[in-house]
Amino acid sequence: MHQSVNAEIISIGDELLYGQIMDTNSKWLSEEMDKIGIRVVRRTTVGDDEKSLLDAFNAASRRADVILMTGGLGPTKDDLTKQLLAAYFGSSLTLFPDALEDVRRLFESRGKELTPTNRGQAYLPSNCTYIRNAVGTAPGMWFEEAGKIWMSMPGVPHEMKYLMEQEVIPRLKKAYRLPVIYHKLIRTVGIGESWLSDLISEWEEKLPDHIRLAYLPSLGEVKLRLTGFGTDQDRIASEVEEQIDRLKPLIPQYIYGYNQETLPVAIGHLLTQRGETLALAESCSGGYIAHLITGIAGSSNYFNGGIIPYHNAYKEQLLGVSGAVLLREGAVSEATVIEMATQVREKFNASYGLSSSGIAGPGGGTEEKPVGLVWIACHNGQRCFTRKLQLTQDRTVNIHLTAVAALNLLRQTVLQQAE
Amino acid sequence: MHQSVNAEIISIGDELLYGQIMDTNSKWLSEEMDKIGIRVVRRTTVGDDEKSLLDAFNAASRRADVILMTGGLGPTKDDLTKQLLAAYFGSSLTLFPDALEDVRRLFESRGKELTPTNRGQAYLPSNCTYIRNAVGTAPGMWFEEAGKIWMSMPGVPHEMKYLMEQEVIPRLKKAYRLPVIYHKLIRTVGIGESWLSDLISEWEEKLPDHIRLAYLPSLGEVKLRLTGFGTDQDRIASEVEEQIDRLKPLIPQYIYGYNQETLPVAIGHLLTQRGETLALAESCSGGYIAHLITGIAGSSNYFNGGIIPYHNAYKEQLLGVSGAVLLREGAVSEATVIEMATQVREKFNASYGLSSSGIAGPGGGTEEKPVGLVWIACHNGQRCFTRKLQLTQDRTVNIHLTAVAALNLLRQTVLQQAE
Repeated sequence: MHQSVNAEIISIGDELLYGQIMDTNSKWLSEEMDKIGIRVVRRTTVGDDEKSLLDAFNAASRRADVILMTGGLGPTKDDLTKQLLAAYFGSSLTLFPDALEDVRRLFESRGKELTPTNRGQAYLPSNCTYIRNAVGTAPGMWFEEAGKIWMSMPGVPHEMKYLMEQEVIPRLKKAYRLPVIYHKLIRTVGIGESWLSDLISEWEEKLPDHIRLAYLPSLGEVKLRLTGFGTDQDRIASEVEEQIDRLKPLIPQYIYGYNQETLPVAIGHLLTQRGETLALAESCSGGYIAHLITGIAGSSNYFNGGIIPYHNAYKEQLLGVSGAVLLREGAVSEATVIEMATQVREKFNASYGLSSSGIAGPGGGTEEKPVGLVWIACHNGQRCFTRKLQLTQDRTVNIHLTAVAALNLLRQTVLQQAE
Repeated sequence: MHQSVNAEIISIGDELLYGQIMDTNSKWLSEEMDKIGIRVVRRTTVGDDEKSLLDAFNAASRRADVILMTGGLGPTKDDLTKQLLAAYFGSSLTLFPDALEDVRRLFESRGKELTPTNRGQAYLPSNCTYIRNAVGTAPGMWFEEAGKIWMSMPGVPHEMKYLMEQEVIPRLKKAYRLPVIYHKLIRTVGIGESWLSDLISEWEEKLPDHIRLAYLPSLGEVKLRLTGFGTDQDRIASEVEEQIDRLKPLIPQYIYGYNQETLPVAIGHLLTQRGETLALAESCSGGYIAHLITGIAGSSNYFNGGIIPYHNAYKEQLLGVSGAVLLREGAVSEATVIEMATQVREKFNASYGLSSSGIAGPGGGTEEKPVGLVWIACHNGQRCFTRKLQLTQDRTVNIHLTAVAALNLLRQTVLQQAE
């Protein structure tokens, strides 16, 4: 039987209270706690001042079993957090030989002398367990007091994540009989949340109590998060996978990937597996689709290139779109995107040509062709598939939704090849 | 003399504690409070449960003069927040005729009937002031109790921002003698924080006590935030502007804009003012520069288009980069980016041609040409200016820094025209 463990997250720093930076650490920590079955009951952001910090420590100790603290450490911040933790626990700052050794070695490797300020980083509350920070200078500090666990970490995100992944999460798993949890994200595109919910409602109702579904919608996509709670890792994993096997036949055309496999990544996998390539002709999406594709390492294996003909003249000159089509139907038309996709595919000797043309807004709309009207096309060498989109009044949203729809059209086109 | 006013921000919702979404509201609210001189002393995130909410209300009332609450409202959430606020203040949920009228009118305009659930949204704690939410269904609720101000708002960001900007901030300014504050962001590019600090240190030291400087570094840029505190709006504004006039001659080549004028926006202004145009040839930045440019409404006035020749063959075929240059010096070379910038400018009949070629990473590096090596070039019709960059091991960072450096090179090239 597992224990029910509560956690509180305390993020420390005046810069947070001034709104100068986004507190991404708290969100990340919340996700990680949820993944291992620890329930976050409170998140607190407090400034670099003694009274507030002590008040936050006191309140947290009454509410939570585990208290995770980020920020408030480092040579420029006077190490207030460290001193207050010592005061709070009634311990004193003591020299930790391990910590001193690590700080010394770090500075030697950078060819620098150890200054008194840096030496001070090796003084820690005597009741803590020193946790070596291999990717920064401020150490981690782990406390076990009065049945609670406290962990103090630097605020720099990649340092905090390193300490959590390498040290804290393994220790928490040892300290408590945590529920065994298995998560899987099922990523869908091309269908809205309520329609998706309708399609899978019977399956959802039949889910056992220990397997839960959450809908995580975002712009143009819906992620389904399936979470299984159990006592045996292998068994709960296969139970959840079995539920996914029952889900897939209900929505096969919408599922494009799992877990962290985003749409550009999924497309990269598809094209790589098939040894195929892509070329892009973007008008209204203005390079955004190319950016999503090229943001993925290794994309040069399947991306040949693109053209952004931002005016009709260049659609004509560079992509051979016929002047007659442009005159008769306009740039935002099915005929134009078909020509753009066809021509760019040939120009770049690619397996697929993908194109977009539309009115991103907020200006440029007419009664006949309003803001948010977008045509996309995908040519596979034999046929050209098109879609007409009616999006929003917001330029940024329209550019993003155009890219998602275009990548999905590409995905569907590629998979049809497989039939 | 102004009053010293403290605020606490409470964001409500289980989805926040699970880490499902980022709490952008709290950061935005913190910034807005800082702008008007209200000091945020605590931020709390709490779940949709009675005990935690009441505990949070109690603690906040002891710490702050102003309590801003977001989330926990809406038909799907059982309006727990509303009921608890009524209980907390010892009032009861009462029908507010104004609220009912507004809900009714909203549903009529959508051609829908008013359901009992929706009608319930017009029942509010009897001691509140009903604040109409013109951009959503959940109303705002303003309370003045025991010398404190409480404001409850929906969690949907654009609805919360609407209520804050239209209703709450004006009311707070009336309720308190807030310090008169004048902010200005000075945006710099092309210089690191410590070098910038050295260049302006004398000016910084001479700043009077009531005018403060904050450094806000981000990837490739440093924003300087100057904040003046006073008693007269016009006077403090002109004092701060005078300090900026003293700052400008120290770093003229690095300042590119003010307040919300990002680099793509600043370039748009420059080109529009001069009636000039731009074409892009991007290799390693893969469309990202084009995306930054075209993300700005009206960019079709100055952006003609771009080519993304992601393989050497296309640099040759589509941009006429000489095969000999590619063979001899490689794609990542000064000679190649010069040809790319020269050719793309002509192809698109643009005033300026801007190009990039490099090794974004993490793969693809060699000893001679390591990951992070990037060349950029800008041709103005007479001369071509180039820069060699040595960036990082991180692909995403390299793409972003390449774009910032390229846009800065364009900016500098355009301004030289003016000489």
